[in-house]
Amino acid sequence: MATRKSNQHFEFESITLLPSSQGSQFRQIENQIRSAITTGRLPGGARVPSSRRLAELLQISRNTVLSAYEQLISEGYLESQVGSGTRVSLRLPSSFEFPRTTRSASSSAKDIRRLSSTGRRLLEFSQHLPNLSPHPQPFRPHRPAVREFPIKVWNRFLNEFSRFSVAQMSECDPQGYEPLREAIAEYMAISRGVACTSKQIVVTAGAQQGLSLLTQILLEPGETIWVEEPGNAPASQLLQLSGYSIAGIPVDAEGIDLKQAPSGTSCPGLIYVTPGGQWPMAMTMSLNRRMQLLDDANRLGCWIVEDDYNGEFRYTGRPHPALCSLDSHHRTIYLGSFSKLLFPAIRLGFLVVPEPIAPAFRCGRWLADRYSPPLTQMVLHRFIESGQFLKHIRRMRPLYQERQRTLFDALTKAFGDDIEVSLPESGMHLVVQGKTSDIDRRLMEAAERAGIEFHPVSLYSQSPGKARGLILGFAAFDPAEIKRAVVQWARGVKRNRGT
Amino acid sequence: MATRKSNQHFEFESITLLPSSQGSQFRQIENQIRSAITTGRLPGGARVPSSRRLAELLQISRNTVLSAYEQLISEGYLESQVGSGTRVSLRLPSSFEFPRTTRSASSSAKDIRRLSSTGRRLLEFSQHLPNLSPHPQPFRPHRPAVREFPIKVWNRFLNEFSRFSVAQMSECDPQGYEPLREAIAEYMAISRGVACTSKQIVVTAGAQQGLSLLTQILLEPGETIWVEEPGNAPASQLLQLSGYSIAGIPVDAEGIDLKQAPSGTSCPGLIYVTPGGQWPMAMTMSLNRRMQLLDDANRLGCWIVEDDYNGEFRYTGRPHPALCSLDSHHRTIYLGSFSKLLFPAIRLGFLVVPEPIAPAFRCGRWLADRYSPPLTQMVLHRFIESGQFLKHIRRMRPLYQERQRTLFDALTKAFGDDIEVSLPESGMHLVVQGKTSDIDRRLMEAAERAGIEFHPVSLYSQSPGKARGLILGFAAFDPAEIKRAVVQWARGVKRNRGT
Repeated sequence: MATRKSNQHFEFESITLLPSSQGSQFRQIENQIRSAITTGRLPGGARVPSSRRLAELLQISRNTVLSAYEQLISEGYLESQVGSGTRVSLRLPSSFEFPRTTRSASSSAKDIRRLSSTGRRLLEFSQHLPNLSPHPQPFRPHRPAVREFPIKVWNRFLNEFSRFSVAQMSECDPQGYEPLREAIAEYMAISRGVACTSKQIVVTAGAQQGLSLLTQILLEPGETIWVEEPGNAPASQLLQLSGYSIAGIPVDAEGIDLKQAPSGTSCPGLIYVTPGGQWPMAMTMSLNRRMQLLDDANRLGCWIVEDDYNGEFRYTGRPHPALCSLDSHHRTIYLGSFSKLLFPAIRLGFLVVPEPIAPAFRCGRWLADRYSPPLTQMVLHRFIESGQFLKHIRRMRPLYQERQRTLFDALTKAFGDDIEVSLPESGMHLVVQGKTSDIDRRLMEAAERAGIEFHPVSLYSQSPGKARGLILGFAAFDPAEIKRAVVQWARGVKRNRGT
Repeated sequence: MATRKSNQHFEFESITLLPSSQGSQFRQIENQIRSAITTGRLPGGARVPSSRRLAELLQISRNTVLSAYEQLISEGYLESQVGSGTRVSLRLPSSFEFPRTTRSASSSAKDIRRLSSTGRRLLEFSQHLPNLSPHPQPFRPHRPAVREFPIKVWNRFLNEFSRFSVAQMSECDPQGYEPLREAIAEYMAISRGVACTSKQIVVTAGAQQGLSLLTQILLEPGETIWVEEPGNAPASQLLQLSGYSIAGIPVDAEGIDLKQAPSGTSCPGLIYVTPGGQWPMAMTMSLNRRMQLLDDANRLGCWIVEDDYNGEFRYTGRPHPALCSLDSHHRTIYLGSFSKLLFPAIRLGFLVVPEPIAPAFRCGRWLADRYSPPLTQMVLHRFIESGQFLKHIRRMRPLYQERQRTLFDALTKAFGDDIEVSLPESGMHLVVQGKTSDIDRRLMEAAERAGIEFHPVSLYSQSPGKARGLILGFAAFDPAEIKRAVVQWARGVKRNRGT
């Protein structure tokens, strides 16, 4: 871009003063003179009228002019010397150029070319972000029943704590608010069968941040991570962007099967699994596979990450103890999330890590983004400690089971022999597959027309061609909504078949 | 580790039932049988008494036993076959080994050896984290006057919003709550001279996360970043751990001087600066250097990051417009933080980026940790839009100026000719240097004894040997506290000199 030098000289008489709603008078004067300098209309060395003279010209108080001049002197645009009045600074660069606020399409292409390869991939991914509007339609996956959350109790605790202003506004331990970590350790022992202390708990801004921290701390750049196929694609994308090499290992009805690792796959530094309810296929990992996995990880000398995002929502019997509780080799890092147990916007999750390495997580969190907001941590602590947390989970289990059954029945009734759908023992979603890929396509088209939210299974697969089916979340919708949505959807499918 | 097989057989009569405060009866039975299996006292294939028989043995209800058996069958420990009763599963791995909860020192060393090189560095850094207790002593740097924050107004907004439960609990745009982004864009125009739209604003969990996002998006791994020397060390540490190569460029009284770049330094992909008030030396970057920096960055084809962490707290004249407002080449990314303007625990900052690349930031944030808590964003939006935000900043300026002057006077009075201290035009801290490094040492020792918090300048330097002095934050402490702390400190210095 060439320097824009204007031939047009700046006249101080031309300074325009708008009503003060457009900014104070000194600010207006300041801005117009600054702009005259940066656009070359007032060259270096040019004399500036005395404050008395400009005040007369503009019919304003001399103090207003003085205030503007002082600011421009302080910023370096003007220079004042005793005896010789005020001038435009001679030390200004010759290539002053005022930024344009409107930008051409070519400059936009230039910005994009300047991105890193990761930046360009993120720009591309950005077109495929899930729908995040705060008003979900059936059957948005991943969303718990926020309308059933005891928000009044939560807000009562919020109000209690927000009176303690200093604690609410002050720094916090990057590893997490100590009383909250104690409450989480106790919960892990009681509900997930994991014996641990508060020193092993690391509070994070959700599971995804936990994953990012732990890979940084446990893996060298470029190491291989084995993930479930199909599996948690956003996690894989994050790990891929962080420079790790990702290998998908197929899951079957019992969970991940390391024997199925494609030949030639590099040895992993870490294996990422969802034993409590596989994402997205929803089966629970069998005990046999759990033991096999722990043995294999020990043999391979690698870490395991257990993402227990829905281990609590089990509808036959009580939740299985976490994989982590069986691991005598201490190679399993537990990854927990409160977004699915309570509500998405809570933005809190946690890790259970071996105590000797916990300080590395504290420091990693501090460097990444300091700590999670202490107020939310205090309220969550109170919520757990008061018994409300377990009470809420206990209340959600039968509620989700009913919603699961309602969706299953509605789908079977509406689509009958056209689809395959199973009733998993746990989780907050069902996977529906059309008997043919043609039916899949018709189901998806009709769902989109009916405003029904879903995620295609292919979104979570590394070979999208092979993975078929739709993921339907039921937890956030009551039985009436579920039935209504399926009926509407089925109508759309039939109408389309008719044409 | 060898498999622990016990010769001792498990007797079902030995199941002990404690009072129900120790867990429900079925849970106790379940745990004792599971533990007998995993420790080898109940081998695969072993028969389990019928539920009726065990109920009689333990004198409890048969349903309790059934419930425990069903759970163990569901978890895969037991198998039930019609006609042959219930047995310990034959498909269990032979190498079952129960995790030990107590761990030896050698296992701790093993955990540490298993860390990545980054993990080991974090573990080392973790010993040098700043004091983050919520009760700061004079003169903790970086901390604003939280006691002066209008917390009642803030809590009023908090209570207003927390009534809208769905919005408070739901997903949010990863780029930031749209009304908040609009309010920030308006603030940038009015107060920092930066013309931008809400589409260019990216809300982050503080400035440090903003830095991490933007380097990922703008730089290839391993690229060189030029930073100020001395400068913001935690930022440099984060960037170094992320795999970038860091080169320190000395600052003088006018700010960074690229001509002083050590010969042989690689060309930068990005230059990180604090023009509004250098950290830690507190001078404002001169206009001349600003223009030179923008020109040089354009010539080198690199990005600039303007960390404007305290551009607002200027005590002579009004704040200077941001560097970003002068950049016609659109190479400057603006990094803002609400932690210093309002209070640390708010955990919100923002970036101003070219609009065409903003979606990459949205996606990067989503993959990193989803989004900032919407409730805080809503409250902050209301706080800005109601005028409270600018009002608070306007109120803090004279208050900080008074505290700055108080600290300056107290130091001069207490330590007189022993120290050098200047009164910068902006910022929330002063830098004090002893006339000799011996005096520096004495000052630091006495400060530590008197419980005075400070950061040594050497903490922020890449050549800690050369950088001398103490950084003293004054913003969070009232004049009486400041005077008292300096008097106490001075007494400690004198007492020590006496011995």
